[in-house]
Amino acid sequence: MKIISVANQWHQICSHNPCARFTDVILRSYGQVMLQNNALSGLIFLLGVLMGGYLSDKPAIGAASLVAVISANIMAYVYQLNEKAWQQGIYGFNACLTGIALATFCENSPYLWCTIVLASILSVFITKALSTILQQWYLPCLTMPFILITWIYLLAIPSFSALSRVQADTATAHITSFTLLHLLPSSILGIAEVFLFNSTLVGITFLIALAVNSLRITLYAITGSILAIGIALMYGGQLELITLGLYSFNAVLTAITLITFSNSPDSKTNLYILLAIILTVFTQSALTTLLKPYALPVLTMPFVVVSWLWLLINQTLNQR
Amino acid sequence: MKIISVANQWHQICSHNPCARFTDVILRSYGQVMLQNNALSGLIFLLGVLMGGYLSDKPAIGAASLVAVISANIMAYVYQLNEKAWQQGIYGFNACLTGIALATFCENSPYLWCTIVLASILSVFITKALSTILQQWYLPCLTMPFILITWIYLLAIPSFSALSRVQADTATAHITSFTLLHLLPSSILGIAEVFLFNSTLVGITFLIALAVNSLRITLYAITGSILAIGIALMYGGQLELITLGLYSFNAVLTAITLITFSNSPDSKTNLYILLAIILTVFTQSALTTLLKPYALPVLTMPFVVVSWLWLLINQTLNQR
Amino acid sequence: MKIISVANQWHQICSHNPCARFTDVILRSYGQVMLQNNALSGLIFLLGVLMGGYLSDKPAIGAASLVAVISANIMAYVYQLNEKAWQQGIYGFNACLTGIALATFCENSPYLWCTIVLASILSVFITKALSTILQQWYLPCLTMPFILITWIYLLAIPSFSALSRVQADTATAHITSFTLLHLLPSSILGIAEVFLFNSTLVGITFLIALAVNSLRITLYAITGSILAIGIALMYGGQLELITLGLYSFNAVLTAITLITFSNSPDSKTNLYILLAIILTVFTQSALTTLLKPYALPVLTMPFVVVSWLWLLINQTLNQR
Repeated sequence: MKIISVANQWHQICSHNPCARFTDVILRSYGQVMLQNNALSGLIFLLGVLMGGYLSDKPAIGAASLVAVISANIMAYVYQLNEKAWQQGIYGFNACLTGIALATFCENSPYLWCTIVLASILSVFITKALSTILQQWYLPCLTMPFILITWIYLLAIPSFSALSRVQADTATAHITSFTLLHLLPSSILGIAEVFLFNSTLVGITFLIALAVNSLRITLYAITGSILAIGIALMYGGQLELITLGLYSFNAVLTAITLITFSNSPDSKTNLYILLAIILTVFTQSALTTLLKPYALPVLTMPFVVVSWLWLLINQTLNQR
Repeated sequence: MKIISVANQWHQICSHNPCARFTDVILRSYGQVMLQNNALSGLIFLLGVLMGGYLSDKPAIGAASLVAVISANIMAYVYQLNEKAWQQGIYGFNACLTGIALATFCENSPYLWCTIVLASILSVFITKALSTILQQWYLPCLTMPFILITWIYLLAIPSFSALSRVQADTATAHITSFTLLHLLPSSILGIAEVFLFNSTLVGITFLIALAVNSLRITLYAITGSILAIGIALMYGGQLELITLGLYSFNAVLTAITLITFSNSPDSKTNLYILLAIILTVFTQSALTTLLKPYALPVLTMPFVVVSWLWLLINQTLNQR
Repeated sequence: MKIISVANQWHQICSHNPCARFTDVILRSYGQVMLQNNALSGLIFLLGVLMGGYLSDKPAIGAASLVAVISANIMAYVYQLNEKAWQQGIYGFNACLTGIALATFCENSPYLWCTIVLASILSVFITKALSTILQQWYLPCLTMPFILITWIYLLAIPSFSALSRVQADTATAHITSFTLLHLLPSSILGIAEVFLFNSTLVGITFLIALAVNSLRITLYAITGSILAIGIALMYGGQLELITLGLYSFNAVLTAITLITFSNSPDSKTNLYILLAIILTVFTQSALTTLLKPYALPVLTMPFVVVSWLWLLINQTLNQR
């Protein structure tokens, strides 16, 4: 109850104060990374991101995400692309991920920060353009603009001496078996990896951010993560990747997205979400093979492709 | 006449007996691989597939195709995606090809069969989703779901120790010249290669399956195959590939599809189909180069791309 | 005034004489490469192309472009795809570029000329098909058919002994610094590179061709070229490529296209075109990395992708 009364107060402040309204949009932009149109969730996600940057010895990541989200939302406001979408943080969440990804994969330099601002602004326009294409089928952009702009910048690095890629960390300790004890930490890492972090503490923070808005979605997120681990284990996936949650983060997003757009989670819907998670895991492995020659991360592409396909079917299933 | 009366009897049985109706759908799923909505054609295709598996010392292929078609059609029935399309075998033919391809390219193991069932079920959902996208332009899915799901699984193999790729057969005897004597057998092999088989007998069986439904389509199929060989020979394509019908199978499908959707085969239509066949041959060579680093087969992708483009034009030509 | 009266006379001749009308379409096809629906512009472009072929010791290029444009327009006339589009040269400009590209990248041989005719005819059908898809979003094809058909033929070369790729020229003299003196010549080379030429004289001819139709577009073209050079310099791009205008030609086309489709060039529009040019430069570098393993030129793909995205946004901006 207390949370609700605080939320109401915040709502009232926002309606009067343009500064508070802009802060609200910034926070919702963080929330929308996991489809939560909720400022409190967003605030906790933001804390998680700051913590994640700090814990991975890259505090620049948190600042990068903030710079990105602010640049994107200012630009979207100036061009008045879509008032309602802007208020819900729709023009900010791709910039948030782009900022984090560029700060994670590129060496820190003044050029990097210039690139982050540019990429964030461009992500706003790409979001608008893709929305126009996708509205034909009532589909949301999801994180496609983030994937496109990040891939473009990472692929452009060899052409430009001002940008350079961070040397990949050496892999963590070799793992010879996966026991039930690994299951929960790995699933939570899968949640953290949505924002490209590798920390259980951050994963738990993100789960709290989800739980603040919806317990059902939290449940589906963690179940999606566990299922992806199970599928990868069954087919003999690499234990290092499974333990780090790298098979899970796309499945988490698929699960959240499909349950958000479903009317009622009956057994047919659950089976249909399970199939989507299975396809997400295999699409991720396939994309990994495709992108290997370019040393390109798959990011959240498997989630986007599978969710688009499944949302198209969902429309038919819900029509009846 | 006798065939027609048998067909009528079968029709009557199907309207009463759900088991017969399901068998009818299974057979039509086989027929739809070459766009024939005809249970008898389907039955002959099924016999050809069983024979092809047997002749290539891989009897599992026939079983794989049956398992795939049955899984797919059960799933499509449970989710009641589109009653009419289901009855015509539209939800089964991609699974049929997926089953054959996975059994051809992967080592036999319990995981393979689990994968075939999964891939077939997923192909149903992908078919439904792609149909929703493509109906905007009145385009059919063709074999796109089969191509996508097969590529995803083949590309995923390096990530999973439970799946492994069959070692490619060493090429057949070296051929130094192509004479008129090679023309007919090679064209017939082109028909067999639609189902990934390399046997003239199987090719003849498939031609009979076509002829049962339409002589005109049979004529266009074999002509498409011959033309593809002619174009490849003219441009100096590899004789081994030409002789095996590997330049033909996509052209065969393009020819069948375009004549099926054309109103009247006048000379303008024939020229327009010829151009499509030429583009199919070059698209196939281009895709071969693109996919070589990934050791990925082109499957029927050239046919799908060219047919979609040409069907879009066809709508305009027929409008007048 | 004199030009206008000559234009009127030409208009009158065209309405009576089918031969003149066809010539008009041929010339407009050249003009449409840079979006100029103007026969006089087209004539100057044609002269530039002939000159460019001559200056680069490849006179076949000029002939190839003519053969291509004529073949394409005859085919479009025979199939009566779209009367109005045909008259404006819409079915010819992709063929024009395809002819130039194939004559530039492939060894001269009778097969090459056969391929140029075929590719040009196919480009007409691809133009028609893509238009049908894109009209859903009121988007033009731009040079997509040219890119697709040229890539297909270049990728198909390894499969066919009748076609072979020209050995790439060794790079020009090594450049150690870029001064203001380089800026104008390099920007003009960027204009010439739209038609794949590397000559300042040809670039100036093309600028005149633009100026005949619209001074504003000429200004945006050269500004786009200069901006692309600036961005590439700022990020430390390779000086050789920058000096040759290879970072500019896509930006030139983006600038021309976006200003053509904009209502009023206010500061918001100019910023939005600047962002498009920035994205064009980075997309070009990204595509270069992607296509390197296949030794495939990026052609005008970055321009097409960015222009499509930005034109989609433009519709929203102009609606208000």
